[in-house]
Amino acid sequence: MNYPFARRMHKIPRSFVREILKVTEEPEIISFAGGLPNPLSFPVEAVKKATSKILDEEGEQVLQYSTTEGYAPLRDFIARRYSHQGLNVDVDDIMITNGSQQCLDLVGKIFLDQNDGVVMERPTYLAAIQAFGLSEPKFHSVPLLEDGVDTPTLEKLLRTEDVKLFYAVTSFQNPTGITYSKKKRKEVADILTDHDTILVEDNPYGDIRFMGEDIPPIKAQLPDSVLFGTFSKIVSPGMRMGWIVAPPEVMDKLVTAKQASDLHSNYFTQRVVYQYLKDNDVDGHIQNIRKLYKSQRDQMVKSIKEFLPSEVNHTEPEGGMFLWITLPEGMSSLELFDLAIEEKVAFVPGEAFYTENPEVNTMRLNFSNCCEDEIVEGMQRLGRAIKKLVDAKK
Amino acid sequence: MNYPFARRMHKIPRSFVREILKVTEEPEIISFAGGLPNPLSFPVEAVKKATSKILDEEGEQVLQYSTTEGYAPLRDFIARRYSHQGLNVDVDDIMITNGSQQCLDLVGKIFLDQNDGVVMERPTYLAAIQAFGLSEPKFHSVPLLEDGVDTPTLEKLLRTEDVKLFYAVTSFQNPTGITYSKKKRKEVADILTDHDTILVEDNPYGDIRFMGEDIPPIKAQLPDSVLFGTFSKIVSPGMRMGWIVAPPEVMDKLVTAKQASDLHSNYFTQRVVYQYLKDNDVDGHIQNIRKLYKSQRDQMVKSIKEFLPSEVNHTEPEGGMFLWITLPEGMSSLELFDLAIEEKVAFVPGEAFYTENPEVNTMRLNFSNCCEDEIVEGMQRLGRAIKKLVDAKK
Repeated sequence: MNYPFARRMHKIPRSFVREILKVTEEPEIISFAGGLPNPLSFPVEAVKKATSKILDEEGEQVLQYSTTEGYAPLRDFIARRYSHQGLNVDVDDIMITNGSQQCLDLVGKIFLDQNDGVVMERPTYLAAIQAFGLSEPKFHSVPLLEDGVDTPTLEKLLRTEDVKLFYAVTSFQNPTGITYSKKKRKEVADILTDHDTILVEDNPYGDIRFMGEDIPPIKAQLPDSVLFGTFSKIVSPGMRMGWIVAPPEVMDKLVTAKQASDLHSNYFTQRVVYQYLKDNDVDGHIQNIRKLYKSQRDQMVKSIKEFLPSEVNHTEPEGGMFLWITLPEGMSSLELFDLAIEEKVAFVPGEAFYTENPEVNTMRLNFSNCCEDEIVEGMQRLGRAIKKLVDAKK
Repeated sequence: MNYPFARRMHKIPRSFVREILKVTEEPEIISFAGGLPNPLSFPVEAVKKATSKILDEEGEQVLQYSTTEGYAPLRDFIARRYSHQGLNVDVDDIMITNGSQQCLDLVGKIFLDQNDGVVMERPTYLAAIQAFGLSEPKFHSVPLLEDGVDTPTLEKLLRTEDVKLFYAVTSFQNPTGITYSKKKRKEVADILTDHDTILVEDNPYGDIRFMGEDIPPIKAQLPDSVLFGTFSKIVSPGMRMGWIVAPPEVMDKLVTAKQASDLHSNYFTQRVVYQYLKDNDVDGHIQNIRKLYKSQRDQMVKSIKEFLPSEVNHTEPEGGMFLWITLPEGMSSLELFDLAIEEKVAFVPGEAFYTENPEVNTMRLNFSNCCEDEIVEGMQRLGRAIKKLVDAKK
């Protein structure tokens, strides 16, 4: 049969990163390509206890269908954590989703018609391009500077183009590791207010700040905006438990879209996660993850300085799981990728993270899923691969 | 802020059934309105054992990110079960989804552009209208007869209209309980082949046949088609574990759409479900569910004959969870609904299940989630409500 696929499917490439991850699955390759949390951060025993407890105490009920919005005590737990961050959020402003990836799908569904304008960071989270892409919007992009998005460019874009929403990963961004400063957050809030544009703020790494000062999400200054969160980095990514925070009028549409998409998120797992959060010292657990990732990040920054040529630029993230490398002008990280695989080390070439005009001399490194020894060895290999590429260009 | 919602959101009403379920939540109401499996059918202890086992034996690994397609041994288990039904399906033809509801979302995403033709049964599964509705297709509908869809009307529609796909719940349909006969399945396969139209076959209740002869899905005769399945009725609906079966070319697009939607389905729960299936006598468990639902269905059919006026028509399903009532011409089940609530009994008015020109004298009754005593009492109440409506019309 000649299948008549929808127009949108011709525009969405299968995830570049997933294709690359296949190449990097060989055991002898040290991979900085993935985006996996360190499994040391998963509370296996506590999850087992939580599961037994809810099945013993609540029985059949935790296996039955449930509400689209999600388990109220879990949503209340999330709301109370926000209040410690200076964010006033009610339990009814929160819906449980299948990781924060589904938040992107739902936001696309409720807001985006074909050719609607969407502003993305440059570079931006690859899977956001894919999820919004299903609605066939018109993407614009604004460069990221060291302290967040380039606000004059953002302002000019909102003034001259028809834009519905601005998507931003405001802390320890994927792929760059960049965090918006306090000042930058205020500027963005003001610009979006002036231009009546919706902020869609994605904050999967917010809990994993290992240096510097905690800064509230932009939503604290912009209550009309939409904010995503996830348990992927602090409990388990495989459980696909995230949430979306939105004002009532938006939440009403999100619930309709979620019903149509999958009725509700896995209720059994919602109950497991809530029981885990209730019975354990989550803040202590998060402290341990921060320590672990900080030492891995420190080792990677140190190894970059030690083993990569000094012309290579890199970010020094204060949290999260990624840092961003910029090779000298004229070099291609795609070309480097092949040489790196020969040296048995992997990363993600930067061009996957651009909606337009990719900067081909960039690349993303993940530091959360390698131990320090592997980081040292992997960066030595990467150093050799870069040297080969430089020599080949001479 | 004045939110600029997407056009599709103005067309999708919030689920009628969910709104109705809110009215029926009062404890003194006997509700035939929901679509819940009987919690007696949930294997609580076995799920607890399965969870402990995978966490003990596999540890962190079952909490990590996983592949979009889903856990291969689980998909293999599903494929092997199909082979007993005369369906030749490979592990690679199966992807794990969030219940079969997500199959609808994914099929809409990969096939449907705005105004594409979709043929639905008349009446049809409400949540399919909602899920496909996100793509703003043009709905057509073909009446269901006692043994499946009215094939001459289907043939004429495919000949005269531009139609991409035909959506059918071929066994114990929701809402009617109707099952396609062998003959009807062959006719549908032939018509779709002749007109090069995709069959989307939804089979959530296939395992729950409690009388009559097992019949393979139409997909057995139509390998190009797409088929949905779910563990909701035989393990747990709250876990949201379903699957989609599709030929390679379609699967490739489904994987792309699933990646963009939520990366993958809950891996932890996939592992729990697989361990449960592996370590337990699932066929014995399904036999118990069949016995339970058969006696509830028998009681409901008996009570209809005993307590409802003889002019009331009803289906006598051979499986599944629902039956369908047709009141005499000129009566409205929406009017009856208010009288029924006064009598403390609830159902879903039929008009929710039509894409066009609803037959307002129809209604859906669920028999899976009430014990036999409640069924007797509830049908007496319904009988009184119908009598009131008949008297009011005189």
